[in-house]
Amino acid sequence: MTSWESLYARRATRMRASEIRELLKLLDRPDVISFAGGIPDSALFPARAFKEAYSEILSGPEADRALQYGVSEGSPRLRRWIAEHMKSLGVDCGPENILVTSGSQQGLDYIGKLFLSEGDTALVQWPTYLGALQAFNAYEPAYDRLDPGTNLSADDIRAKAAASDGKVKFAYLSPDFANPTGRTLDLAERRRTLALAEELDCALIEDAPYECLRYDGAPVPALLALDCEAAGGIEATRTLYCGSFSKSLSPGLRLGWICAAMPVISRLVLIKQASDLNSPVLNQEAMARVAERVFEDHTAGMRATYKARRDAMLAALEAHMPRGTSWTRPEGGMFIWLELPAGIDAADLLTASVEKAKVAFVPGRAFHPDGTGGNTLRLSFSCADAEKIEAGIARLGSLIAETVTATL
Amino acid sequence: MTSWESLYARRATRMRASEIRELLKLLDRPDVISFAGGIPDSALFPARAFKEAYSEILSGPEADRALQYGVSEGSPRLRRWIAEHMKSLGVDCGPENILVTSGSQQGLDYIGKLFLSEGDTALVQWPTYLGALQAFNAYEPAYDRLDPGTNLSADDIRAKAAASDGKVKFAYLSPDFANPTGRTLDLAERRRTLALAEELDCALIEDAPYECLRYDGAPVPALLALDCEAAGGIEATRTLYCGSFSKSLSPGLRLGWICAAMPVISRLVLIKQASDLNSPVLNQEAMARVAERVFEDHTAGMRATYKARRDAMLAALEAHMPRGTSWTRPEGGMFIWLELPAGIDAADLLTASVEKAKVAFVPGRAFHPDGTGGNTLRLSFSCADAEKIEAGIARLGSLIAETVTATL
Repeated sequence: MTSWESLYARRATRMRASEIRELLKLLDRPDVISFAGGIPDSALFPARAFKEAYSEILSGPEADRALQYGVSEGSPRLRRWIAEHMKSLGVDCGPENILVTSGSQQGLDYIGKLFLSEGDTALVQWPTYLGALQAFNAYEPAYDRLDPGTNLSADDIRAKAAASDGKVKFAYLSPDFANPTGRTLDLAERRRTLALAEELDCALIEDAPYECLRYDGAPVPALLALDCEAAGGIEATRTLYCGSFSKSLSPGLRLGWICAAMPVISRLVLIKQASDLNSPVLNQEAMARVAERVFEDHTAGMRATYKARRDAMLAALEAHMPRGTSWTRPEGGMFIWLELPAGIDAADLLTASVEKAKVAFVPGRAFHPDGTGGNTLRLSFSCADAEKIEAGIARLGSLIAETVTATL
Repeated sequence: MTSWESLYARRATRMRASEIRELLKLLDRPDVISFAGGIPDSALFPARAFKEAYSEILSGPEADRALQYGVSEGSPRLRRWIAEHMKSLGVDCGPENILVTSGSQQGLDYIGKLFLSEGDTALVQWPTYLGALQAFNAYEPAYDRLDPGTNLSADDIRAKAAASDGKVKFAYLSPDFANPTGRTLDLAERRRTLALAEELDCALIEDAPYECLRYDGAPVPALLALDCEAAGGIEATRTLYCGSFSKSLSPGLRLGWICAAMPVISRLVLIKQASDLNSPVLNQEAMARVAERVFEDHTAGMRATYKARRDAMLAALEAHMPRGTSWTRPEGGMFIWLELPAGIDAADLLTASVEKAKVAFVPGRAFHPDGTGGNTLRLSFSCADAEKIEAGIARLGSLIAETVTATL
């Protein structure tokens, strides 16, 4: 028998299954109303537009090229569309500032690979997107807390990073309707975060997969747009913007992008080349067509649907949650973050919730790199209709009320 | 201006552009006959079968699922086909032994990530597939030479690895019609390599993208098949088999696989989850259909075409190469490896060849981790017809003859 464990790299000790993904496998029960999965509603995908695009490409003279290897940077037509999209967000850039990735998840993996040596520090929010921690963990960083709401001392952060035998390489955050909290950074918080990155002379990673899902309130400029404005152009910026088609058109094609200054993009292209050569040309060509044709109308329709679901969930929470619980009121995205009274553990609650209330959610501890957050949970409103949301939140509210009473 | 260089991880110093990819960009000139690109002929892709498969999936009730996130392991239908295919190669396994990857290149990246800490040793052949070195380099290994043709001393290898501050984690090789040499390991060499891996108690990485492209000679069992036989089943083996659809059906969908014992597969699934969540479900579903329907007939047709091209190139080399040159006679794949008289540098020759002879190839030094091999070059016969092969090799032969004379 091969002694596999003794052959693995040190980093393997930090690789663990996503609790959420494991959870989702268990929760695929028809009698349970699930607010657990953080995925788009597949009934909303523009399947007809994709069908036409694939048919066009595979019927025409382009078929051979679409089925061949491609360039690591990404297909020119798709990079052009993405660059125009970034311009609409206030980022003056060209296709040369875009690397196409296999979802923004791959962008996070590449960013970890490019910046992190063992012991280097990554600043992340508490709680934060679990998949980012999983991607970065492979490169064995230390984590320190990024809290854009408070005054942060660059000196303290630097001293702590030096104690872990590395330096601060980047600050990572999701400024719009973050997974898992649904929170959006205001302009002052964004400026403060940029100033901190400048003081630390580190990179800033802006993870923006939900950008197109704003339901109300005024858009706040992207960190990269603010950085461009202050620095006098994208080539002088320190922000890497990770975008995604997963929440706007389809996650199934696994397409996202990184937008940044050219020296960084050219390094990331080398990483792409060594890791999977290129993302499928066929998918990139199909996505370019679908984006050109339906992006605006399609995302407008999705926003209307998701807005109604968010409103239904906020109304149901207001109606059914007992005193002592609180929750966020997101302006977009897919998530509401709920805080239980201290002392109630959301992981314990989940067991009772699935068995008795027939409602599923994600306990919040996994989103905290320091293992705190036991009394928090994430609710996703993206995949349930208003009726199910009302019924599910009512049942969950009763269960929490009972649990609070029993704990008193 | 951000001081990017000071922010990069140590590993970034080992990331370099593929000389070959850079070369290919320059060589895309209509007046040049190119034997440089190691890619399949795109005129041979089963485009109609792919068109039908995509149309079917996107027209039916499966569309929503195909456009959604999927499981990291890969789509069940595709894993089943791959497991059956592995059985046909003498490997008794099930879908649980298969991880679907984005091309076998991604498999190599994941294998580096799983096994290599900085300073660990990877045994590789000299010359070897350049993309493997690029994938492994990100994990900062030391390389030592694997030479299945000679008697290898495990003690010497171990001592050298300890001197580089690590241990031998795996031996990597491509046993059938290797890129770049076209060479195939015979049964004795395979058994010797397996015995060495056993003695070193390390993993064995079998890179087999050309497996389906044998034109003559009897197939030699896969290393994984020999390992299964000796160990008494796949769960007791130490071999990770990397397969690919890129040379059989299409590289454009970016689909390959790793076949190995379950404990390794489950670790690799965690890596996949953290690095890009999953390969596109739509592509996996399309590939499963196309493989089920046309794999046997399609690869038979491709073999006939490539065999004729190989024969044309061998005949042309026989007719036109001056004394002092020698070359391999591959039983399959896409490559012939040519050795020039010592003292003639293939990189210098390439400049003259493109300018005067209008013929392109890949100089061999890049395939050698130790920078030797200056008098070698790789010729690919996959993308040129017999007429072009005869004309191109004739021109190259004359140039080499002139160069040899001038050097005397």
